[in-house]
Amino acid sequence: MRRDRFLLAATLTAIFSADLYFILLPKLRSVGQGTGQLCSCGPSNLTLPRLRGLATPQLSNWTSALPLDDTTTEPTDGGLKLGRLFAHPLYNIQTPELGPEERLLQVEQLMEYYRKKVSRWERHNKLYSEVAAISNISVIEHEVTFDPDASWMKFHLGISRYALYSRDDPAIPQLLRDMQSMPVVSADYTQDEKALKGACDCTQVVKPSGHHLKLALKMHDFAKAMFKPMRQNRDEETPEDFFYFVDLQRHNAEIAAFHLDRILDFRRVPPVTGRLMNITGEILQVTHNEDLRAVFFTSPANNTCFFAKCLYVCKTEYAVCGSPDLLEGSLSAYLPGLSIAPRLSIPNPWIRSYTFNGQEEWEVNPFYCDTVKQTYPYNSGNRLLNIIDMSIFDFLTGNMDRHHYEIFTRFGDEGFILHLDNARGFGKHSQDETSILAPLSQCCMIKSSTLVRLQLLARPEFRLSDVMRESMEGDPLRPILTEPHLLALDRRLQKVLRAVQRCVRRLGKDEVIIRDFVKSTVKPQTSTELIKAR
Amino acid sequence: MRRDRFLLAATLTAIFSADLYFILLPKLRSVGQGTGQLCSCGPSNLTLPRLRGLATPQLSNWTSALPLDDTTTEPTDGGLKLGRLFAHPLYNIQTPELGPEERLLQVEQLMEYYRKKVSRWERHNKLYSEVAAISNISVIEHEVTFDPDASWMKFHLGISRYALYSRDDPAIPQLLRDMQSMPVVSADYTQDEKALKGACDCTQVVKPSGHHLKLALKMHDFAKAMFKPMRQNRDEETPEDFFYFVDLQRHNAEIAAFHLDRILDFRRVPPVTGRLMNITGEILQVTHNEDLRAVFFTSPANNTCFFAKCLYVCKTEYAVCGSPDLLEGSLSAYLPGLSIAPRLSIPNPWIRSYTFNGQEEWEVNPFYCDTVKQTYPYNSGNRLLNIIDMSIFDFLTGNMDRHHYEIFTRFGDEGFILHLDNARGFGKHSQDETSILAPLSQCCMIKSSTLVRLQLLARPEFRLSDVMRESMEGDPLRPILTEPHLLALDRRLQKVLRAVQRCVRRLGKDEVIIRDFVKSTVKPQTSTELIKAR
Repeated sequence: MRRDRFLLAATLTAIFSADLYFILLPKLRSVGQGTGQLCSCGPSNLTLPRLRGLATPQLSNWTSALPLDDTTTEPTDGGLKLGRLFAHPLYNIQTPELGPEERLLQVEQLMEYYRKKVSRWERHNKLYSEVAAISNISVIEHEVTFDPDASWMKFHLGISRYALYSRDDPAIPQLLRDMQSMPVVSADYTQDEKALKGACDCTQVVKPSGHHLKLALKMHDFAKAMFKPMRQNRDEETPEDFFYFVDLQRHNAEIAAFHLDRILDFRRVPPVTGRLMNITGEILQVTHNEDLRAVFFTSPANNTCFFAKCLYVCKTEYAVCGSPDLLEGSLSAYLPGLSIAPRLSIPNPWIRSYTFNGQEEWEVNPFYCDTVKQTYPYNSGNRLLNIIDMSIFDFLTGNMDRHHYEIFTRFGDEGFILHLDNARGFGKHSQDETSILAPLSQCCMIKSSTLVRLQLLARPEFRLSDVMRESMEGDPLRPILTEPHLLALDRRLQKVLRAVQRCVRRLGKDEVIIRDFVKSTVKPQTSTELIKAR
Repeated sequence: MRRDRFLLAATLTAIFSADLYFILLPKLRSVGQGTGQLCSCGPSNLTLPRLRGLATPQLSNWTSALPLDDTTTEPTDGGLKLGRLFAHPLYNIQTPELGPEERLLQVEQLMEYYRKKVSRWERHNKLYSEVAAISNISVIEHEVTFDPDASWMKFHLGISRYALYSRDDPAIPQLLRDMQSMPVVSADYTQDEKALKGACDCTQVVKPSGHHLKLALKMHDFAKAMFKPMRQNRDEETPEDFFYFVDLQRHNAEIAAFHLDRILDFRRVPPVTGRLMNITGEILQVTHNEDLRAVFFTSPANNTCFFAKCLYVCKTEYAVCGSPDLLEGSLSAYLPGLSIAPRLSIPNPWIRSYTFNGQEEWEVNPFYCDTVKQTYPYNSGNRLLNIIDMSIFDFLTGNMDRHHYEIFTRFGDEGFILHLDNARGFGKHSQDETSILAPLSQCCMIKSSTLVRLQLLARPEFRLSDVMRESMEGDPLRPILTEPHLLALDRRLQKVLRAVQRCVRRLGKDEVIIRDFVKSTVKPQTSTELIKAR
């Protein structure tokens, strides 16, 4: 009996050991691995070499002289990195009170413009309602209000020669909220579309299939926003065989670009938010444009769809469809009208050839920047450095389609560059198109203010992907970017820093890093407009 | 000590029991479930009610009089169902020797035609080579041969008033093999494309984005085949918002349709095979057409691509690309040239409205078939029954795009209907478009020969999906259809049989099931051309 017990015990021990070794241990191991796999945001998902924390030590030998205060806390993953970022001295530079000549618009001027718009709208609306009643067109009419405190008014009044908005302007979050929820009182084609008059400009290869679906929406307080509908799922990548100029426009890229621009502290992208639109109630039924009404149809799946005007008749496969009426889209705040705030559109010196196999000079001539540096307006002021800022911004988003840039004529050549039209970014997370960085790598210059912020965002405690994720958390269409796109931002940021590092090695810090302002709340310094060292 | 041993044994037992209950059992259970999930072909993956084996008993009360011999073996899943199907008496009906008036072409006529083609080709080729040498165009030249035993010649000579080929014609498998492997000596646009002269026919909504990519290829023995490149992955479904007329053309649908048509014993689809083409070596470098050469380009990913002619300049997103040169496609054997075997293209009485919201009479008038029955050529002969056959074929594949059908003029109204252009089938496996069956459900007639074969294919031992899978196993591009598409065939077959059953309940067997031929090798009967019972 005792022997039996012993035998039983021995057998059980053997079984248990075998079980422990073959079943439980592998199971535990796989659970451990499984956790890693579930956490899609973990760097373990990357097949690329892990780069985090690499930048700071690597670059420290040449960045120590920069005013990068190390007063930040140690990385604590629970904290809000975005809040810490915006509390950092670099993002708390005292801005001097703006003089009237530094503002884009004066209050009275804008108010007058607004009043005129409202009364014109009311006249037009009255006439249209009468005509619509006769023609048996059902149009939903919304009340409009004249609100001198409207957030869009405050946004327009806040535009200065330095940026589209100041860091702490409460009008910006208010404008985003308003664009998210305000009733749309009218929808129409944009001025670009109207200029085309429904014709396809097929003389160039650049006929972007995405273009003609953007619409201008008017809110009930006269805020205007450009609507770009969702055309691609967030996890779809641009096919590798697509040229950049036939790529779709992505609503989420437009939204993400606004957040990235704000995080980089450029503030050169007008506020953009996501919104789930009812394309029947908020577009079809409020438009007064018969052409726009004519491109709406009901799909075989009984969804409401509309398609691009110039592709009429042939191209319903280009249509976008609601489900059955609801469709995601981006809403970008309009800039002040061209009549009160004219802008200039200038070809990008690093423009691409919009043909199958054409090449531009910058692609073949390594000394191209020397030519640019001698050409007006790049031969003085900060224009070239602004172009380089823009190339860094575009490289981070992967946007190859920056053929032109715009400036406000009021500020002349010293004004900032607008980063409009960012919907062709975030197409391929797995590819870093280093040719976009050509202005930086060929000219070997960067503003010191830009560089220190990039370095900050390369640190684990402010990691760019983390602050971007947090920043976009507030958007109604969250998540805006998939994790691979967020992680691509970190990887690309490292590549930008390495490009700067290569320049510094070759030419020395003084030649490459161009001191512009820096007036921090912590260490007050003299505010200077860009001092070019050379 | 003994007590210790006992304690140890008890502890181990407890641990083992817990382990057995919480770890091993769930593990075993999950392994059991996992196996089911891995088997993607199992009916357990279907969310729809399982239908297999349902038809035969359900329909037996009204099919007993049909010559459906039950000499088949019981289902044994290991056996080759396709072989058994083709060995079945229904597929072994004695065909009477064809008289010259029953053949489409006479040997001498075709041989003469062939000789002329070869000599014209040789003249043209000589001239072209001289011009190409001057213009510095590199064209690969392949030898051509005049082969009176070419499989395509045998295929053409085998076309009769009853079908495109006979069941046991060895020329058909030989033709498939030849199309798979023979060197391509020239590539060109098809006659349809040339007629368009590069213009887009945008006057109707029917501008199929897929059309303009089909090409005519010539093999070295002068066999001609129509090449349709792969434009969609096999597991992609047509978006639900797409109208049937903007749907892509699918190379695999073209291949699958040939196999289905053969299995249904219609033999009204010309032989089609898949082939992995080198679009550089087998198209670009052998074409003598400058227009075709001009639509080739290299993509950003360094793949060779070409795009539709009429969409030139604007639409590179319509391009198809090799990887870097290799591209899947379907090759459909050409029918004899129109000059020796003219065909008539006739609008389908059940044509659809190719507009957004237009409706045709058959969609709103339940008595539409009565009108058709009184209209020439549907008021006599077997034309209407052939249309119904075609609607069953199209319903099984899900092809809504049958606007016209063709017949050989030589056989007049008694000839069979050609089932050409099947590339818009197999777009959605999850949807059964019952409107395609309108000719059957509205006219309530079906050939008895068609019905008995459908019933046979509904049986487990000949299940349609199984014989289709087996049949397409021989194609170089296998698998041709995904499992959901194969299973959809079984589900749709049941729907066809139920539609017939409803008609029989309403009108009686004699009104619905129209006796045509039946001369079986097993039970010889009088071969009769369709005897209409009414």
